[in-house]
Amino acid sequence: MTLKEAKRLDAGDPLTFARKRFRVPDQLIYLDGNSLGALPAAAAERVYALIRDQWGEDLIAGWTKHGWIDAPARIAAKLAPILGARADELLIADSTSVNLFKLLGAAVRARPGRRVILTRHGNFPTDLYVAEGLAEMLGLELRRVAPGEIARSVDESTAVVTLTHVDYRSSERHDMRAINQAAKAAGALTLWDLSHSAGAIELRLDEDGCDLAVGCGYKYLNGGPGAPAFLYVAKRLQDDIRSPLQGWMGHSEPFAFEESFRPVSGIARLLTGTPSILALAALDAGLDTFDGIAMADVEAKAAALSQLFIDEVEERCGAEVRLASPRDPRERGSHVSFAHPSGYAVIQALIERGVIGDFRAPDLIRFGFAPLYNCYEEAWRAAKAIGEVLHTRAWDQRRFRERAKVT
Amino acid sequence: MTLKEAKRLDAGDPLTFARKRFRVPDQLIYLDGNSLGALPAAAAERVYALIRDQWGEDLIAGWTKHGWIDAPARIAAKLAPILGARADELLIADSTSVNLFKLLGAAVRARPGRRVILTRHGNFPTDLYVAEGLAEMLGLELRRVAPGEIARSVDESTAVVTLTHVDYRSSERHDMRAINQAAKAAGALTLWDLSHSAGAIELRLDEDGCDLAVGCGYKYLNGGPGAPAFLYVAKRLQDDIRSPLQGWMGHSEPFAFEESFRPVSGIARLLTGTPSILALAALDAGLDTFDGIAMADVEAKAAALSQLFIDEVEERCGAEVRLASPRDPRERGSHVSFAHPSGYAVIQALIERGVIGDFRAPDLIRFGFAPLYNCYEEAWRAAKAIGEVLHTRAWDQRRFRERAKVT
Repeated sequence: MTLKEAKRLDAGDPLTFARKRFRVPDQLIYLDGNSLGALPAAAAERVYALIRDQWGEDLIAGWTKHGWIDAPARIAAKLAPILGARADELLIADSTSVNLFKLLGAAVRARPGRRVILTRHGNFPTDLYVAEGLAEMLGLELRRVAPGEIARSVDESTAVVTLTHVDYRSSERHDMRAINQAAKAAGALTLWDLSHSAGAIELRLDEDGCDLAVGCGYKYLNGGPGAPAFLYVAKRLQDDIRSPLQGWMGHSEPFAFEESFRPVSGIARLLTGTPSILALAALDAGLDTFDGIAMADVEAKAAALSQLFIDEVEERCGAEVRLASPRDPRERGSHVSFAHPSGYAVIQALIERGVIGDFRAPDLIRFGFAPLYNCYEEAWRAAKAIGEVLHTRAWDQRRFRERAKVT
Repeated sequence: MTLKEAKRLDAGDPLTFARKRFRVPDQLIYLDGNSLGALPAAAAERVYALIRDQWGEDLIAGWTKHGWIDAPARIAAKLAPILGARADELLIADSTSVNLFKLLGAAVRARPGRRVILTRHGNFPTDLYVAEGLAEMLGLELRRVAPGEIARSVDESTAVVTLTHVDYRSSERHDMRAINQAAKAAGALTLWDLSHSAGAIELRLDEDGCDLAVGCGYKYLNGGPGAPAFLYVAKRLQDDIRSPLQGWMGHSEPFAFEESFRPVSGIARLLTGTPSILALAALDAGLDTFDGIAMADVEAKAAALSQLFIDEVEERCGAEVRLASPRDPRERGSHVSFAHPSGYAVIQALIERGVIGDFRAPDLIRFGFAPLYNCYEEAWRAAKAIGEVLHTRAWDQRRFRERAKVT
């Protein structure tokens, strides 16, 4: 493909307008939105105004006057079309790790007598740590199986299956519907971590029969560094779900200051302590970047961007790199990984050229395509830069060897 | 006391300079800093710059370039002089509720075989909810005793004593040192919630033999609505303390992406998920308001402000109100409560006059004195306003009764 052809794709892209919703530095090709999303144009002013006018002028009255108290549910509602869920199934709260702990604890409580938390090898590490900590405390077994063995490993001992939907390294996407069905057939619950898929591909949590889910706000949702996370509980389960980590914001009457916990009905029972209103405001701006955007368009662009990138990298680099992501776009998320023995050096050289990807040990170079602000030209230029870096490197090595001979 | 005398106290106040570190609206007498602290003058610009320049320009590189990754420990170090602790005993993380859960879970784990979490009736409700949730999950007993019975109730069945240091209603202050000693003698741990004392009175966590503590960042520490919370683990205990809620930020090598949790040595093992960098920046500005300030001066001013207020209210209102806080300043925190049968209406009338206190059911009117920005003149004027409101009210009622007779 030529640069001109890539530009033509951008001209025909139905999501081109969304890039204006962000401030992406001109000099960068930023392909790390799968790690930290770009800055929404509205975020800084929105948070500044909240601090100066709402906190500064109205102080404690801000909780009611500016609706801070409802922010976790109000902002979560914006996730509904992004995740294919109902607004009353969603909440913004805490971090992904904390939410995972709450829902995992709730799941094993809802399935008494079942001793196994089922997951896979290579699941996102912090998810494994959370599950390990809970299993250890409760004397449960955390069973890790190979990625392909999950559905057939669910049985009547399984309380809950917990998986990261899109693999943070390979970008491999689990078949959510199939695993939900297998779990349901065995009477187990499912708990998905959507950190690497929410905002990048089309999700249908309700339609696919998900039970529980969590995910982070700072990747494709553009909520800023360490943004609050979200959680999902299917409506049909909400009355049976009780977190072991229960705080006053989840109480039926938080301001009655009762001595015992009475969970409010619905999803809000999963709230714990007082949430950061500043962090919520930034995430709110992040979610507004999805306003009016169809997730089918996002998924289509994710597939097209990553496919262009794969094709162009392979065209330029041939056997020097090995695709470490599924070749079929329906089987991957919106990031792509290649293996290269000097992956770390390659990423450093790319960063020097203004192409921002990242490295995952031992040998993966990883590039995230955020369909709202990345464009085809960027995917093309990034692939070109990889080709140049590899060739320059080879040339440098040759030169180094030649020099070594001389001295 | 006359207004002139109150102003003279302000003129001689060694902390007068600190008020300039805040933006307090001119028209308000804000006595609710025990619920949400006032806005530090530097906060809005600091967060704005972080969003625009650090996130916006450097994106993912901000984690290292701007030291985001070290923010929880770096900002916590500013708490050391405020709490009477070492910097390496402190951490900013999560919410108070989540931190309490982590440390309570760690405490019962560190005292195997002991089945009792000891607390008091009237402890801060969310702390009770957290303890209740943990006890229920682990089959432990949450034992609530009368406030005066705590020290003598600790025995060899007690794993941990958990208390809010300063009562959120009465302002009564527990004798931290005595309870720590009683717990230690019985082999139990102590876990203090300092939300209503940190930044308002002088604390000596190390000297008083505390084991564990948590507290919120949004009251006297001025970190903004829902600011991140802090936690404390005495150095001598840190290697024995393991949270059941373990996330990647507490891992020995978070970026090695190992499959099992290996806690880092020291306090950082209590970190869980990725913290909000925006919320941390605002809290950082809040803690900077304590720069160069001696907590002995803060405590002295807390005592003097609240005493002036008590004296003036009682002078003006006599038996119409009943002091619901300890009369001895050494036995209370920096807020004062009075009981009045129409407390709710009194607070509403005060708010209309620009005097911001709050109401706690059934009949408490509560006023927090933040020694860094509240002054003697405000305490005097607030007391005067209470007198006026009560008298106006009595007059209104008389008028209402007279009118009722006429019609």
